[in-house]
Amino acid sequence: MEDLKKYIRDIPNFPREGIMFHDITPLLQNPKAFRQAIDAMAQMMKGREVEYMIGVEARGFIFASALAYKLETGLVIIRKLGKLPYETINASYDLEYGKDILEVHRDAISGGSRVVLVDDLLATGGTAAAVGNLVKKLGGEIIGYSFLVELTELKGREKLKPYPVWSVLEFPV
Amino acid sequence: MEDLKKYIRDIPNFPREGIMFHDITPLLQNPKAFRQAIDAMAQMMKGREVEYMIGVEARGFIFASALAYKLETGLVIIRKLGKLPYETINASYDLEYGKDILEVHRDAISGGSRVVLVDDLLATGGTAAAVGNLVKKLGGEIIGYSFLVELTELKGREKLKPYPVWSVLEFPV
Repeated sequence: MEDLKKYIRDIPNFPREGIMFHDITPLLQNPKAFRQAIDAMAQMMKGREVEYMIGVEARGFIFASALAYKLETGLVIIRKLGKLPYETINASYDLEYGKDILEVHRDAISGGSRVVLVDDLLATGGTAAAVGNLVKKLGGEIIGYSFLVELTELKGREKLKPYPVWSVLEFPV
Repeated sequence: MEDLKKYIRDIPNFPREGIMFHDITPLLQNPKAFRQAIDAMAQMMKGREVEYMIGVEARGFIFASALAYKLETGLVIIRKLGKLPYETINASYDLEYGKDILEVHRDAISGGSRVVLVDDLLATGGTAAAVGNLVKKLGGEIIGYSFLVELTELKGREKLKPYPVWSVLEFPV
């Protein structure tokens, strides 16, 4: 088992002054590290009978897609406002300055479907909680949240209670 | 072998009047159809010794990621301007109105790497050609282009010569 943390590149002051950005692209680019990351995410939800992976635009698509392929589930995509062509429902969530809006197709899942919400990073949990609300509006049953990276000091997982939160790599912030 | 075309939903007048949008979300949502689509894309590049799948933001990530996982290659992501945190090179390409800019990390691949460029849709080929130019600037060797859907009457594959173009589903426009 390789230490996947060595494939995460820390970049100071991105996207702005004072923020340390954890760049996952070296991990994606390494075939063994990428495979190991997906396998670890899959292992954490083993036995849960997941029917859909829910991937959040854009980096969430990367992990949700490979997990859906590996575990033979469906893949549902959550997109920024105006990108989905069919009837949608949406949820807004707070950013540091202003709001953003996420959408999902109204017929993306059927009621009672067992879903896992997937993204690359759990920070404050604002996006993940908004996506959870969208899924609940569609009648989905949230089995858990799966992330590659969790920034533990931001306590995002508290916002996602009572659902299980699985993350492969932890950084303080 | 299922007919994957039945999982593509045609939506008229999206994103604007006169355009027929081929919505792939029903295909993604169906586990068997999604798996079959990825397997078909993989089959078409069989034996080519690909080292990296290059995925274009955002829907391209879906197919490049699952292919990278399945074929045990690295995954390189091409993003819209300003999203990548490290040193980048970029390429602009023409849209119907104005331009858009795509970026890739300068160290994403090493010279001589064998890569396949992956996206959901081949239309006029403008985006794919721009991504090809980025990859060539990095010193990558383009093995081919892989798409789920090709709009054959738009003749995008002519813009991608002399490289092989593989597509799973063809529609006229």
